[in-house]
Amino acid sequence: MRLKDLGEFNFIDRINKAVKLSGRVIKGIGDDAAVLRYSKDKYQLLTTDMLVEGKHFYKSDKAELVGKKAMSCNISDIAAMGGVPKFAVISVGLPGSLDLKYAEGLYKGIKKAADMFGVDLVGGDTVGSGKIVINIALTGEVEKKNLTLRSGAKENDAIFITGYIGGSIKLKHLNFTPRLKEARFLVNNFKINSMIDVSDGLLADLGHILKESNKGAIIYENRVPVSKSASNFNSALRDGEDFELVFTLPGPVAGRLKKIWPFKTKISEIGRICSSRKGFFLVRKTGKAEKIKPAGFAHF
Amino acid sequence: MRLKDLGEFNFIDRINKAVKLSGRVIKGIGDDAAVLRYSKDKYQLLTTDMLVEGKHFYKSDKAELVGKKAMSCNISDIAAMGGVPKFAVISVGLPGSLDLKYAEGLYKGIKKAADMFGVDLVGGDTVGSGKIVINIALTGEVEKKNLTLRSGAKENDAIFITGYIGGSIKLKHLNFTPRLKEARFLVNNFKINSMIDVSDGLLADLGHILKESNKGAIIYENRVPVSKSASNFNSALRDGEDFELVFTLPGPVAGRLKKIWPFKTKISEIGRICSSRKGFFLVRKTGKAEKIKPAGFAHF
Repeated sequence: MRLKDLGEFNFIDRINKAVKLSGRVIKGIGDDAAVLRYSKDKYQLLTTDMLVEGKHFYKSDKAELVGKKAMSCNISDIAAMGGVPKFAVISVGLPGSLDLKYAEGLYKGIKKAADMFGVDLVGGDTVGSGKIVINIALTGEVEKKNLTLRSGAKENDAIFITGYIGGSIKLKHLNFTPRLKEARFLVNNFKINSMIDVSDGLLADLGHILKESNKGAIIYENRVPVSKSASNFNSALRDGEDFELVFTLPGPVAGRLKKIWPFKTKISEIGRICSSRKGFFLVRKTGKAEKIKPAGFAHF
Repeated sequence: MRLKDLGEFNFIDRINKAVKLSGRVIKGIGDDAAVLRYSKDKYQLLTTDMLVEGKHFYKSDKAELVGKKAMSCNISDIAAMGGVPKFAVISVGLPGSLDLKYAEGLYKGIKKAADMFGVDLVGGDTVGSGKIVINIALTGEVEKKNLTLRSGAKENDAIFITGYIGGSIKLKHLNFTPRLKEARFLVNNFKINSMIDVSDGLLADLGHILKESNKGAIIYENRVPVSKSASNFNSALRDGEDFELVFTLPGPVAGRLKKIWPFKTKISEIGRICSSRKGFFLVRKTGKAEKIKPAGFAHF
């Protein structure tokens, strides 16, 4: 059997089942970042992301933007846990024949994003590689009361999303701003029951929340904020790498959130959490409800 | 200018100079692991290593050994700081056409090494890639008093190395045991002034200690423990990926160390630290002293 026949999520499930964890681990594989025992009031967070030339970027892309993306997608993971990013280690695989300017551009982009979000670049590994590969691992911290997992969604939670989704391939996947200040505002001012960043596509990532929370959901086509870059509504639901936040909070406070939201970044209430028995539905503009199969970007 | 014209260490120096760090960082780029503020008595350590198919291993190598190596070289880095490994995140780039058994073998090897040394596998990233790439980032902890940097070597320190060096390409680079228990014994029982693991070759890695400590050294051909796998003495000095520990401690306690050393792992006193003004010398079996240029494994 080949890897792509099994699929990414099934493969991860299989790996995950084999792992046993010590009591120091609050949450291991299966959220945007790992949650580790740290101090009386805080947890430590740990996440990692790998970008491969030809899959997540092309050599024709601007090196600085590729570096920015490598750092930003990790910061987005820490944001999705309600936390603050701290320390990063950078591994870069580079062809020896690569132009030095391109290699330095990658680091420049990484550094700019790190500086913008208060991340210290504390180490790394530089190796030879046929194709460019960048891996960043990032630690973070989160106050225990602010931790937001995928697994906390409750019935009648309102489902929100930041920004616009779809068509990120045209540029946004390389040049996005992780929603760190938005996430910190949310956890500091509301009881956010669940949160995730959109890397696999809205349906897949909301699907992760539903699976981990054992819940269903109803979302409404006419409320989903679709980017002008998206080919159409259906693809916007499945396009990956938007790096927006999807989060849920108790329905009764949704109004207050919209009222006091202080940022230019748009937020949209796109639906409600319901019981898993009811399932996952999309209500079309026509009023017709369709059952959703949460498929997203396939990594293999 | 191409990357390989500049060389790995010059490139890292250049990157390093551009990085500014906050006061939370005790030691950033330039040691086996980063050292971060943590608790009253301890520092946190953070390291990362990337292995690329065709550079650090071949697809014909046993998957489990490749996974073991990926985990073990990170544990070796934490050991070289005097610390204990804790939490790992694993990024793996895999071709979709890869046999599922091979992919599972990689994780099996990673998990075995993690279990052996008390490391929790807490997260990761799985992506598509033309060649297999494995990146592991590993945290650790070290008591403040036990931290061993590259920069602490002092004049008249005895220079020791564990095990045998050279010819690791024949198997050991895939199937070695990181010297964690040896390192912990050393830091718990002696004032170890400097330590590094041999990944770039003895001369290059002892060279890192000398550079960071601003010292020189004299080592003796007849005391260097050369592996049976090594082609010859001169190549053994430069072969990479031995993953033995090189460390220095005050000359007067060298005798006590050899007396109370409790492990089967060999240790050899191979020379002495001297002033940087004197330089870095190898004394041949003939008694002739040669000036050393610390070159090691070239990664580009």
